[in-house]
Amino acid sequence: MNTFGNIYRLTSFGESHGGAIGGVIDGMPAGLTVDLDAIDRDLKRRRPGQSELVTARNESDAVTFLSGIYEGVTLGTPIGFTIANSDMHSNDYDNLRHVYRPSHADYTYTAKYGHRDHRGGGRSSARETAARIVAGSLAAQALEAEGITVKAYTSAVGYIRLDAEPTSLDLGRIYDNAVRCPDPATAAEMEKLIRLIRSEGDSIGGIITGVISGAPAGLGEPVFGKLHAMLASAMMSINAAHGFEYGMGFAGTCRRGSEMLDRFVSDADGKIKTAANHSGGIQGGISNGNDIVFRVAFKPVATLLRDVATVTDKGEECILKARGRHDPCVLPRAVPVVEAMASMVMFDALLANRCSRL
Amino acid sequence: MNTFGNIYRLTSFGESHGGAIGGVIDGMPAGLTVDLDAIDRDLKRRRPGQSELVTARNESDAVTFLSGIYEGVTLGTPIGFTIANSDMHSNDYDNLRHVYRPSHADYTYTAKYGHRDHRGGGRSSARETAARIVAGSLAAQALEAEGITVKAYTSAVGYIRLDAEPTSLDLGRIYDNAVRCPDPATAAEMEKLIRLIRSEGDSIGGIITGVISGAPAGLGEPVFGKLHAMLASAMMSINAAHGFEYGMGFAGTCRRGSEMLDRFVSDADGKIKTAANHSGGIQGGISNGNDIVFRVAFKPVATLLRDVATVTDKGEECILKARGRHDPCVLPRAVPVVEAMASMVMFDALLANRCSRL
Amino acid sequence: MNTFGNIYRLTSFGESHGGAIGGVIDGMPAGLTVDLDAIDRDLKRRRPGQSELVTARNESDAVTFLSGIYEGVTLGTPIGFTIANSDMHSNDYDNLRHVYRPSHADYTYTAKYGHRDHRGGGRSSARETAARIVAGSLAAQALEAEGITVKAYTSAVGYIRLDAEPTSLDLGRIYDNAVRCPDPATAAEMEKLIRLIRSEGDSIGGIITGVISGAPAGLGEPVFGKLHAMLASAMMSINAAHGFEYGMGFAGTCRRGSEMLDRFVSDADGKIKTAANHSGGIQGGISNGNDIVFRVAFKPVATLLRDVATVTDKGEECILKARGRHDPCVLPRAVPVVEAMASMVMFDALLANRCSRL
Amino acid sequence: MNTFGNIYRLTSFGESHGGAIGGVIDGMPAGLTVDLDAIDRDLKRRRPGQSELVTARNESDAVTFLSGIYEGVTLGTPIGFTIANSDMHSNDYDNLRHVYRPSHADYTYTAKYGHRDHRGGGRSSARETAARIVAGSLAAQALEAEGITVKAYTSAVGYIRLDAEPTSLDLGRIYDNAVRCPDPATAAEMEKLIRLIRSEGDSIGGIITGVISGAPAGLGEPVFGKLHAMLASAMMSINAAHGFEYGMGFAGTCRRGSEMLDRFVSDADGKIKTAANHSGGIQGGISNGNDIVFRVAFKPVATLLRDVATVTDKGEECILKARGRHDPCVLPRAVPVVEAMASMVMFDALLANRCSRL
Repeated sequence: MNTFGNIYRLTSFGESHGGAIGGVIDGMPAGLTVDLDAIDRDLKRRRPGQSELVTARNESDAVTFLSGIYEGVTLGTPIGFTIANSDMHSNDYDNLRHVYRPSHADYTYTAKYGHRDHRGGGRSSARETAARIVAGSLAAQALEAEGITVKAYTSAVGYIRLDAEPTSLDLGRIYDNAVRCPDPATAAEMEKLIRLIRSEGDSIGGIITGVISGAPAGLGEPVFGKLHAMLASAMMSINAAHGFEYGMGFAGTCRRGSEMLDRFVSDADGKIKTAANHSGGIQGGISNGNDIVFRVAFKPVATLLRDVATVTDKGEECILKARGRHDPCVLPRAVPVVEAMASMVMFDALLANRCSRL
Repeated sequence: MNTFGNIYRLTSFGESHGGAIGGVIDGMPAGLTVDLDAIDRDLKRRRPGQSELVTARNESDAVTFLSGIYEGVTLGTPIGFTIANSDMHSNDYDNLRHVYRPSHADYTYTAKYGHRDHRGGGRSSARETAARIVAGSLAAQALEAEGITVKAYTSAVGYIRLDAEPTSLDLGRIYDNAVRCPDPATAAEMEKLIRLIRSEGDSIGGIITGVISGAPAGLGEPVFGKLHAMLASAMMSINAAHGFEYGMGFAGTCRRGSEMLDRFVSDADGKIKTAANHSGGIQGGISNGNDIVFRVAFKPVATLLRDVATVTDKGEECILKARGRHDPCVLPRAVPVVEAMASMVMFDALLANRCSRL
Repeated sequence: MNTFGNIYRLTSFGESHGGAIGGVIDGMPAGLTVDLDAIDRDLKRRRPGQSELVTARNESDAVTFLSGIYEGVTLGTPIGFTIANSDMHSNDYDNLRHVYRPSHADYTYTAKYGHRDHRGGGRSSARETAARIVAGSLAAQALEAEGITVKAYTSAVGYIRLDAEPTSLDLGRIYDNAVRCPDPATAAEMEKLIRLIRSEGDSIGGIITGVISGAPAGLGEPVFGKLHAMLASAMMSINAAHGFEYGMGFAGTCRRGSEMLDRFVSDADGKIKTAANHSGGIQGGISNGNDIVFRVAFKPVATLLRDVATVTDKGEECILKARGRHDPCVLPRAVPVVEAMASMVMFDALLANRCSRL
Repeated sequence: MNTFGNIYRLTSFGESHGGAIGGVIDGMPAGLTVDLDAIDRDLKRRRPGQSELVTARNESDAVTFLSGIYEGVTLGTPIGFTIANSDMHSNDYDNLRHVYRPSHADYTYTAKYGHRDHRGGGRSSARETAARIVAGSLAAQALEAEGITVKAYTSAVGYIRLDAEPTSLDLGRIYDNAVRCPDPATAAEMEKLIRLIRSEGDSIGGIITGVISGAPAGLGEPVFGKLHAMLASAMMSINAAHGFEYGMGFAGTCRRGSEMLDRFVSDADGKIKTAANHSGGIQGGISNGNDIVFRVAFKPVATLLRDVATVTDKGEECILKARGRHDPCVLPRAVPVVEAMASMVMFDALLANRCSRL
């Protein structure tokens, strides 16, 4: 269950403080000219230490490709890659060996496996998402060749929310600021809130909106591989994700059917479109040619810069002292991960759809 | 992609007005004494025509088991089953052969497959969920033997919301009323709203809350088979589902980390528990022994008892006349489907966990 | 593990004397005009009672399609089907309830599952292969549209062997005789041997040769989905199959490399071919455009018309008395099953290959 | 399709002359104390340059584990590993860039993917099997803890055959000689033949016999995951494998059913055994508690120390000159690969069987 996807598949490996993290991408067709700089750019967008808003753990997150690419072009064979774990202060974690941090995975991993790597969260660390960036970035490159673009942005940090329709925003500006919100005024407010939260040693959650443009009608595999079910599975596999919705989502539960109909209209060429997009670009689990719009809720992460009461693995109460580094808000770093996972889903769906008709 | 699950797997088939719907359940271990009455009960809870609140399409939804069960006990071999399509007024649908109903899957199925069964939605009909009830009901029986129970209930119909904590409700009363809400006063309000909506030929959405009790710590398969990712995928594959969240979900995005910590405490026996359950029973994708709590948003369905403007498959504008039967609110019938899908996920996770340790 | 295939997938179900056997075919693209008569013809070629050479169990083996085909054309949705079990003398098997027949699966099914349907072999009966015929026949129809034909024939019954190269045979004559050997003289000898074996209440094994023509170069998915590995898996899953080889197979182990080279030559148009086909049409797990040639060894089946000494499930020795019906040689009925499985593999490989290049 | 297995899964990557080969092992349960020396020993048994009988390509084949093992014990998380490609004379292969070597995969890879790494066979190189050794060696360690041992040995090189029953051999002596044949006299004859073949710049094939002891009755997943079907798929995925059989295999096709019955007998404790093992330890696709015995045919490899006529990728005829290194017989190095693949199959089957009963 460390493999994601059906045709385009990522198998990821790696603990936070092990030898390296990495993965194998299987199912990338032959013939893609790989843009290594784009992958680097996407990795940088995720890595810690890139701004004051996120954790200072300092990792270069340089990817080494070991196979599957020859003379700059994909071979159709599996693409193996590693990302070294460079800033490993393993001894920093000695105090956690026998302690279960509240709202972390320490206890559940022990319950499941018995044996656990306690350093930095081990396998449950969000560090694992760097491997997803690599596979997602490659998928995005293949999608671009088909005219499909995948964008994500921070649309809420705590109670600061950007409610504007994605179509009214300039999605080219997402990475212009440290919170990854394309509206500069909202971005400034979000930054302010994150700084406040950080100063209190606390953390805050938020929402990331994803927008996929240019996807043709026909992608998605009913009944269990519905496009939104695959997106949901992808998004909910990201660390700290606690909710997923598409189209009108939870807000739509208060609307009436008559308000939500996406009426069909023909354009001048007889091409069929819809007058609205309450459905978020998907009907019956299959893309309809509109923008695909979804939102992912992230909880405030559990690592705080405060002393926290908890228990040891023997059940003894103890105090976990505040330590030096923490992410007051993971949203900025999660934006490229949402893009990566969505890109993988879309490319997988695009490949699957090659077999929908004789 | 008509198969759900990894070890306990349902492969479903069937169009709304084809010969039959049904499925094959693979991976049910040998030795379960099957309670056929319980399966019948669960099918009845889903079928149309059971109350005034839902569509009058009249189907008995009797399941016929063809294999995998011998002398009342599962064999470990695949369980094939069919459910006849009995109330098939196929000619009723002649007017839909060349028309795309707005916010339905008519257009997207055509875009994907070229060839489509237009009768009653064909494969995109929610009738397909009857097969899920069969597989889910069997899974629930196997879970019960392990002390795990899966319950779901209507927690919102439009703006009528039941905000009480699941633990404060009597979940034994869910099926006491037609809306499947365990709080009688809220149920009455919901019913009233649905009657109003129906009288206007309109439809309304809502939310279903799921509660899984008795699950041991350790279920779920990181990193892509996280328990909540599997639940999300399961729920989002249900017709009309537009959102999923667990624990604090979207509401948690406004909270601070310090408010959301589920502090560990030891009970008298040294057994570790948490003082709260903001995490919805899951940490790092693995169950922690608490109740697993999630919510699913359903949109108002697109079939209205009103004339609707739309287009033909040639792009010509036309009016779709109001017809005789519709579901003003699918929530009541979706409750057993949510239970079924959650049961399948949990049983699959339970079996997978048999291989987590040597 | 009752599902075969990656993209074109059959999930089969059914015990020999249960309600029915059948299956679900998932992954058939939309748009195939189904030839029901061809499926019927293929089922007839497998069914018992069709000649004196095989068992007299009398089943019509009529398939009922329940979904996935509308107005004679595939929908792209799963194709559910059933085949009734009509000649069920279930009481005939009462004597087998507590007895393990030697070289049958009675003991191993009990060891694995605890609970067993003893009637007619239950799930281990070759009756299950009828479902494969349905999926294979549909695959063959799709392959034909691409110019690919799959043929199999009996090339050995005991020591009677047809050593001629497949290319020297008229494969249109395979079904002209009851043993399914395209060489009439050899067929007559084989028939004679089978009659002798039957008269002695014994059974005999043999070899079936498969020949796939018209496959383009490029099919097969290294390294674990090599075309011959998928064929091997397919063939070895057929009841009584005990060996598989392709190209020169076991005989090639005595040859030198210099004798086995398939030298490349260019034809007048510059198209590259090979001067010989020792490789059986596959190199590195990928088809090379030549005929794909393989052979499957079938053991003599274990059901004899003789009294046999064995034990009960309590370990008590007992005599199993000779009964009325048996197959002295399964080869004739296995020929269409080999064709069906090979057709599924080839169609699956053809679909997979749609994703090999961008 | 670079993933093997269902629960215990290896995803392998790597080209012969790329950055590295390696893989990810997913599904290894937590709690195995890893014996790194045993893995090293198994890698050494496969690597080139270990004797005069095999190619002189000199690679140390040292494995680096990157994850999944902490403090010497498996974590239950994926085990990523790499093996560096150290002896890369990439320029040696410039002459092969546009040439298709006969009976190699050069042509078929180009037909499939368009773009190819021509150096040393790229992905089609047997170098890839080193990754299998790692996963197989770990599986073997887990099997040993259950009392299951997997052995393989060279039972034929060309016409030199060791026909003795495996039970009559001392399988502890397999690795005592360079050909990996447990009978010293036969081994000497085989060595002599290989030296002769090598002196002529030619190559020779042979047969490897596999023997699995100590497996309990009940392993294997009918109908498509039959134990022998999984073994066949595993073995046929090994480079140069051209045939697989188990039990009596092809030889059994000349026998009568009455000669092949494995009569059941009860031992003193009432435990049921069979008096013979014609079935190769498997009935109905499920292990019966006897030794599992199978044989794999390997063709003589196509790389010769001779000038060979062939064509370029433009279809022009050319001569491929003899080069410095070749494997006159791959059997000795294939023995540990057969053991590795069989170990993976058996461990996968053992884990799957944990879910056969409630």
